[in-house]
Parts: sequence; C-alpha cells; structure tokens
Amino acid sequence: MSKYWNKKINEAEPYVAGEQPKKGQKVIKLNTNENPFPPSPRARAVLRSFDVADLRLYPDTNGTEFIDAVAAVEGVKSSQVFAGNGSDEVLALCFQTFFEKAENTELPVLTPEFSYSFYPVFEKFYDIRSKKIPLGEDMAVIADDYIGVPNCGIVIANPNAPTSRSISIDEIRKICKGNPDSVVLIDEAYAEFADPYETAVTLLPECPNLAVVRTTSKSYSLAGLRVGYAIASEELIEGLKRARDSFNSYPTDRLAQKIAAAAVSDVKYHKECISKIIETRTYTQDELRKLGFTMPDSSANFIFAKPPVGIDAESLYINLRGKGILVRYFKTSGINDRLRITIGTREEMEQFIAAVGEEVNDAKNR
Amino acid sequence: MSKYWNKKINEAEPYVAGEQPKKGQKVIKLNTNENPFPPSPRARAVLRSFDVADLRLYPDTNGTEFIDAVAAVEGVKSSQVFAGNGSDEVLALCFQTFFEKAENTELPVLTPEFSYSFYPVFEKFYDIRSKKIPLGEDMAVIADDYIGVPNCGIVIANPNAPTSRSISIDEIRKICKGNPDSVVLIDEAYAEFADPYETAVTLLPECPNLAVVRTTSKSYSLAGLRVGYAIASEELIEGLKRARDSFNSYPTDRLAQKIAAAAVSDVKYHKECISKIIETRTYTQDELRKLGFTMPDSSANFIFAKPPVGIDAESLYINLRGKGILVRYFKTSGINDRLRITIGTREEMEQFIAAVGEEVNDAKNR
Repeated sequence: MSKYWNKKINEAEPYVAGEQPKKGQKVIKLNTNENPFPPSPRARAVLRSFDVADLRLYPDTNGTEFIDAVAAVEGVKSSQVFAGNGSDEVLALCFQTFFEKAENTELPVLTPEFSYSFYPVFEKFYDIRSKKIPLGEDMAVIADDYIGVPNCGIVIANPNAPTSRSISIDEIRKICKGNPDSVVLIDEAYAEFADPYETAVTLLPECPNLAVVRTTSKSYSLAGLRVGYAIASEELIEGLKRARDSFNSYPTDRLAQKIAAAAVSDVKYHKECISKIIETRTYTQDELRKLGFTMPDSSANFIFAKPPVGIDAESLYINLRGKGILVRYFKTSGINDRLRITIGTREEMEQFIAAVGEEVNDAKNR
Repeated sequence: MSKYWNKKINEAEPYVAGEQPKKGQKVIKLNTNENPFPPSPRARAVLRSFDVADLRLYPDTNGTEFIDAVAAVEGVKSSQVFAGNGSDEVLALCFQTFFEKAENTELPVLTPEFSYSFYPVFEKFYDIRSKKIPLGEDMAVIADDYIGVPNCGIVIANPNAPTSRSISIDEIRKICKGNPDSVVLIDEAYAEFADPYETAVTLLPECPNLAVVRTTSKSYSLAGLRVGYAIASEELIEGLKRARDSFNSYPTDRLAQKIAAAAVSDVKYHKECISKIIETRTYTQDELRKLGFTMPDSSANFIFAKPPVGIDAESLYINLRGKGILVRYFKTSGINDRLRITIGTREEMEQFIAAVGEEVNDAKNR
C-alpha cells in the first residue's frame, strides 16, 4: 500500500512468474516451459552480422520484416499479423481492444476454469468481468459449454495450460460461429507441440471474430527475446494497432525483429526440435505412468501429472527442488494435486525420472 | 470503427510518431531526435560475444544487469531503478500507477500546454483528467504555475519537447515540495543534452514523490533497442513493478538488457557524443539566426525554430522534405509556426543550413 499508488495499483493482484534460477546456479529447469534446444542457427547468423550502428534509429513500428516472415509461413497477409513484446503483451493488448470494461457492459469474458494464470490478472487490471467455465472429465475444455452463454468475449488457450489438453479445430469453429458478436481469442502458445499439428489460423477465412495469439518463446526457443504475435482479420489487427499506438508505438526492437524473422523462416529446424520434444514427451509420460502417475495425454511441451496415492504434489515439488530439479506447482484448489513438468532434453528427463523414482520408493518405504 | 473493438478503442486517438523513411530511401533524418552517432563500441562487443543459445530462456524480469549499471552511474540503489521497453512504456506504466482515473477523482494531472504529444494520448487511454498549464514567455515552463492548483499528479518533460527549453533543479524542487501528495513525473529524455547538465535524480533524497524517467534512445544512441528507465524512491518503483506484473512480466529482453548495460557504463563515450551534439547545436542555432529564424536556446538534441517573416513553417517543412531533409512539423495551433529540427552530424547540419538558405533566398525573390 502506498499513498502514491492509485486505487488500481493498491488493489492489483500481479502475476507471479515461474522461478528463474540465479546466475551460476545449476539446476534442471522444467518449470517455465522453455525449449531445451537453442534457437535456429539462422538467429546466430543474424546476431553476428547485425550492424550495431543501426540501433541508433527507431525500429519499424509494425515489425515488417518479422510479420512478413510469419505471413509467408502461415499463408496469410502481412496485414493480418500483429507483432508485440512477447505474447503476454499481445494478450494484454487483445484484452484492452476486444473485451468491454465492466462499466460499459454486464457481460463477462468466458475462460476455462483452469487456464493461463495471467488471464484473471488482465481481467482485474483492465476492469473486465469474467465467468469461469468448468472443465469436463480429465480436464477437457467442452466447446458446447461456450455456446448460448451471454458474453463480451472468449479466451481459450489451446492446448490449454496447465492442463496440456487441446480441443479440435472443429470445436473452435463451433465456438466462433456460436458467438458471432464476440471476439474469440485462441492462445496458441503451445499449438506447435500438438500431434498432429492443427491451428485455428486455418479458420480465419470463415471466422472474422477469431484472433489467434502465438509466441516465438516456446517452439522457436526465443523466450529471452520477447516476440509474440497475433494472426486475425485485418479489422481485428487494426484494433490492436490502435491500442499499441495509445501505449507504446515501438514494441519490438530492431534486433528482436530480425532474429525472430530468421527463426520463423527456418521451418526445417523448427520441425526437428518439435519432433524431438514430442518423442521425449512420450518417453516421460510412459515412465511416469509406470511409476503410478496419471495424466491426460499432452499436446504441449509440458505434462500435467498427478502423483500416485501416498505422494503429495507439493512435497514432491519441494523434494525435487532440493535435488536441483525445478517443476511448477500451483497452490490453486482443484489443481494443487498435480505438477506441471516441462519437457527438457532426453537426458534431463532421464534424470528427472530417476529422481521421481527415488521419491516413489522412499514413499513406499515410509 | 468496428463492432469487434471495445468503446475505448473505437474512441482512441492514437499517437502518431515521426515518419520513418523506407528502406534504401536516402534522406537526412532530423525528425525524430535520434542520435547521429553509433552506440558505444561496448554495445558491439556485447553483440558479437552474446551466446544465442541463452535466448531460449526467459530474461530476468527486473533487467538486473541493466539496472545495476544505471544505479552505479547515477549513484542510486538498484532498487530505485525500473527498466521498461522504451521510455514510452515506462511513462505509460507511470500514468497507470501514479495518476488516478477520472471515475475515482475530480482532480486532473497537470502538464505544460505544449509538451510530448504522447501525454494526452495516455490520459485519454487511461481515463485520466488533464489540465494544461500555459507556457510563459518564449515557451518557458513556469514552476509557480504548478503550485496551489489541485491535482492528482504532474508530468513535465525537462527539457521540454518540442520547445527545447529546460527549467532548473531548484524549480523542480519547488514543484515537488509544493505538491507533497502528488507524484511529480519528470521526463528527462533529453536531460543529458542540457549545458550545464543537471538532473532531478539529485532531488530524490528529499523528494519521495518524484519519479524521473529516462531513455537510452537519445543520448545513448539506442532508439532501435527499446530500453527506458525510471529512477525514484523504492516505494514508487515497487508500484511500477506491480503495474508491470499485471501486464507483461518480461519487458526487456536478454540482448537489450546486456547491450543497454554496456552502453550506460561507457561514461566517456557518452560524454564525447553529447559534446559533439552540443557544439553542432550551437552552430545550427547561430546559422539559423543569421538567416532570420528565432528560437529559444536549446537544452536538448533538437531546436524549435520559427522561420523569418514571409516563410511559412509548413511550406518550409514540405520543401525540405522535397530536398530529402526530414524535420518535424506539428499542425497544432500555437506551435504550427515552428519546426522541430534534430541535431545531426556537423555535415548533415551544414547541408540542412544550405537548403534552408536556398529557401530563404527563394522567398526573398518571390
């Protein structure tokens, strides 16, 4: 509390990100869904050849080189792509552009009961009403539950976090068509890890109310660079630009634009990294199940696993931390019986499984 | 207008930045107050040695390496420094943290009648009342006019833009002490170009309600990198972190943090660039005055000059543009009789003066 902060800041409930280890601290880091592989070699080439003198000039406001690269890969027009300082910024701008404030409407934004924990932070910060839609069996998003419910917008992470489950493009189509006056925001931060790969981008020609948000942080290994993007109709993108230019006209810097463009263009390398992660995900799920864990099949680069009877999720999180392995534990009631585990390299996951195996044995011998 | 945009976006009046020339277009660019010199050689060294694999991991949320560098140079604690994605973002977060929304107070934020044109955009976008305080003779900010006027905050650019004039630290102290319950935001984007150099940072021990905003875009030649910062009491910085974590927890990327830290630490190079710009500013003012222009002495890296009788500012802007020289012209009544001219290299300013000389001659012969 401070007399110098306004009412909103005094009442804010800020987002708490996953722990970042201190410099030099040696850990197996499976807690913030980063990619274990380095970015495309093309990113390094850009870095080495970049003329530092160019930094004296403001960047292109739209990030043209980057959005052109995205447009080419995704088969859309550049005017359908919006670039921002990480997908968190893009999401924040979407909330400020497409969803109506509580003072102007009684209608809420619909979100899955358990989803990305930044959504309720945005809703509180931007004064937007919210209605949480319960998940179905085994934490599934049920498309029909988003139809016929009055709302001023819908936001769904697909695959959902922290549950790791995805819904089909047909179900997303149904949600978009069932809510023609609302913007349906599909957060595809993890979409590239679904097997088979599907994207709501293919629905854009038939769904003018759809906005798809993506990031280079996960599948492109660029969490440290902060480049996210939205793909939507030109009408929705135009709205995002109006929000951007009311806040910060130059959200992506010159280096970030060039490096992200190079990474997005390297389709072959991107696919190779994803294949390796999917393979290691299967290995990790299989091994955890052998140890008595249960979990839905993951469509993301993490799994959301419930320990066997007799092992408490929070204690396991703490014990793994003691062994230098960071995973994510949410205290929230309803999901506090599970751990979210990022898929690292095969070697990291073998060490993780060995450590979990020790914990399971210790529990049996208690 | 769009039915998919909310009320605020439909009503927004976004900021319009200065023109950026197209790639390959050859111009003398004196319209967005960029630095004509490249950033510190240390920035290049960081770029060349940076391990691109590090980009796979999220950055440090506070930008510790950068804020430590700022703290060392400015003689404050790191906990008194806040880093953001350019000073526009830092300013936007200050408006959202320190100034109260219209629904909660009748009190306005006080700003100079003519100042950075993003301030009214923020006020509109964040629903903050505004009261414009007229400038004095020759466009001076008059400190006494900000005392005894009920307000929920004050924002002053010092040196002010586009006027180029500065007020003394004693006057800022008077404003802070005269408004103990409001946050006084001093935007020092151009402070390093004042001669002699003074900064409101020296007032922090006695003014808990003071927040100083700075940028690496101008004096450090890093407009393309997007790193701005605030220096204030820990209490005010804590408020900014709450706003950041309600919006985007990782505003500055890994490369930007390292490059900006290196640039800020290179005190000697920084001073050399500034000295050259001050020298060229004196030359440019002298030459323009010989041609019949009038202007206040500038404390910034730009001048705000009124053409001689018989020459219309807008026509001069257009004619210079035709000759490949970009300067900034504001249509706003009260300042639409002047041009804002960034100080480039000596060679660029000689070409600029030659072109202006031609225009003055042409006008005489008409």
